[in-house]
Amino acid sequence: MPLILTRSNSNSNNVKYIFLTNGGGVSEAKKAEQLSKKFGVPISPDRIVLSHSPMRSLLPKYRDANVLVIGGKKSSCRQVAEEYGFKHIVTPEEVHAAYPSVCPISYCEDRPSPLAEEQLRDVHRPIDAVMVFHDSVDWGRDLQVALDALVSKGGSLGTIKDSQDLKTTKQSVPIYFSNPDIVWSNEYPVPRFGQGTFKMCLERIFKHLTGQDLEYTTFGKPIKTTYEYADSVLDKLAPLEREPSGRLPKRTVYAIGDNPYADIAGANSHGWESLLVKTGVFRTKNNENHHIHPATAVVDHVEDAVRWILTKEMAKE
Amino acid sequence: MPLILTRSNSNSNNVKYIFLTNGGGVSEAKKAEQLSKKFGVPISPDRIVLSHSPMRSLLPKYRDANVLVIGGKKSSCRQVAEEYGFKHIVTPEEVHAAYPSVCPISYCEDRPSPLAEEQLRDVHRPIDAVMVFHDSVDWGRDLQVALDALVSKGGSLGTIKDSQDLKTTKQSVPIYFSNPDIVWSNEYPVPRFGQGTFKMCLERIFKHLTGQDLEYTTFGKPIKTTYEYADSVLDKLAPLEREPSGRLPKRTVYAIGDNPYADIAGANSHGWESLLVKTGVFRTKNNENHHIHPATAVVDHVEDAVRWILTKEMAKE
Repeated sequence: MPLILTRSNSNSNNVKYIFLTNGGGVSEAKKAEQLSKKFGVPISPDRIVLSHSPMRSLLPKYRDANVLVIGGKKSSCRQVAEEYGFKHIVTPEEVHAAYPSVCPISYCEDRPSPLAEEQLRDVHRPIDAVMVFHDSVDWGRDLQVALDALVSKGGSLGTIKDSQDLKTTKQSVPIYFSNPDIVWSNEYPVPRFGQGTFKMCLERIFKHLTGQDLEYTTFGKPIKTTYEYADSVLDKLAPLEREPSGRLPKRTVYAIGDNPYADIAGANSHGWESLLVKTGVFRTKNNENHHIHPATAVVDHVEDAVRWILTKEMAKE
Repeated sequence: MPLILTRSNSNSNNVKYIFLTNGGGVSEAKKAEQLSKKFGVPISPDRIVLSHSPMRSLLPKYRDANVLVIGGKKSSCRQVAEEYGFKHIVTPEEVHAAYPSVCPISYCEDRPSPLAEEQLRDVHRPIDAVMVFHDSVDWGRDLQVALDALVSKGGSLGTIKDSQDLKTTKQSVPIYFSNPDIVWSNEYPVPRFGQGTFKMCLERIFKHLTGQDLEYTTFGKPIKTTYEYADSVLDKLAPLEREPSGRLPKRTVYAIGDNPYADIAGANSHGWESLLVKTGVFRTKNNENHHIHPATAVVDHVEDAVRWILTKEMAKE
């Protein structure tokens, strides 16, 4: 959970911070509540950018569309998508509940039953877009249902294009991913597969079925759209005042993170200062920087990073 | 469930039959019991060849080895492997039970708990081989655990080779699949992903991690080893008597099946006669044969196929 610090030029004593993570599966409000409890200080939801937060930007296009939402346990991501404002949501659990034969060999036995009338109605409407909000809890089922939509006739689940059309026409619906991470770290000694690996499987099967490359959009660090979204969040917290010349000043932003490929790569290419801690994905015995994505500075832990930043900022004054 | 018919040259009135299927997940005895009930006639287990039946041939090599067995719900494939004679079996459920962090996001909540002492011991021994006995019920978990073994240091789960070794050394353990089917048919209007698609994902991730192609062995129709195994089963049911010249006569075998790519392709390339029914994967409105794997004859259904065979055989006499 990297920490992003900046301050408004109108109030130089007030350092602002946000949390920018490739995690998700809960709302920003829920995550803020979890962090407030963990740190013992109140953290407001407008300081939280989750992997799927930038998917709010898809709302104008898909507000009234029928969206297949993948990821998370039970209906957690349905709730997030509803909170974002999407009106018609279908989940693989619901498709599976309506048609058990869609995925006959699966552990998913906690699928909703019976489905509400409006859930059933959306399950039977053509899918307009697939959005992967979080890690899949059942790859076999979710790969199947996502690909069913991608190769269907016009998004209608239970149909498939003719073999000629499969090879010559564009994929039936667009697909969005919230997080590009191939692997992520937890307490297991070897990194675990993330949403990027799920996408890799999906692309491979799509290529086999159609001979074509899957077209997709990915959000999350180190992707540019996520940093642009983070900028819009910082704009609200620490508005920039135009200089007398009318020019908008450059904001100084410090990103503290543990993952060179996500946190440091993203911050560096977005023109932010980057602080790499040694308590997560990146480990080093000395103070050597990362060989591919070197940070502005390598520090022991978050507290050290904050100290480093404050020292640098105070030297400016 | 294709039907294979033959007869012994020593007893021309006695047509023998076996069932040769890419299904599995239960023992041959259990499948025989299910079919006996379904058809209302006693069918003995020695007439059943399941996708994993030829994996009995791996027993001499792996009897005392530590085998990671993938596929099927709960411990169904563990039971089959035990029945075949494998002494040390580890399943992904057991790995997950011992180390929940191996696959933190998963529905598999019916994992065995607590593990028996000998299960725990095998979970901690290096894996010697991976055997996919049946369709995975949790692709995310099973891809993770299988790949953990394939890129581990000497088969030890929880270790991973150094990045240089990953690219330059051979995969850590061999892997066997019981069934090559990319898709299979059930009542859903579009074919469902089978073990072949699971393998496709596994190969893709392995390639990403190592830069190398996965080496593997596959059993099941239309693979040659499965037909050789079926021959050995037919040998027991309908022994061939040597001709006066000492020559072993050619056996006439009829294979009735619905899948051109598995049943008909396999039978044709093994020198068997093939009868393609129109009640399963293959559908046609007229009597047109399959364009890639044409059968000896196309018939409406199994009864028609048997009639066709008997007519042909009686004409010989």
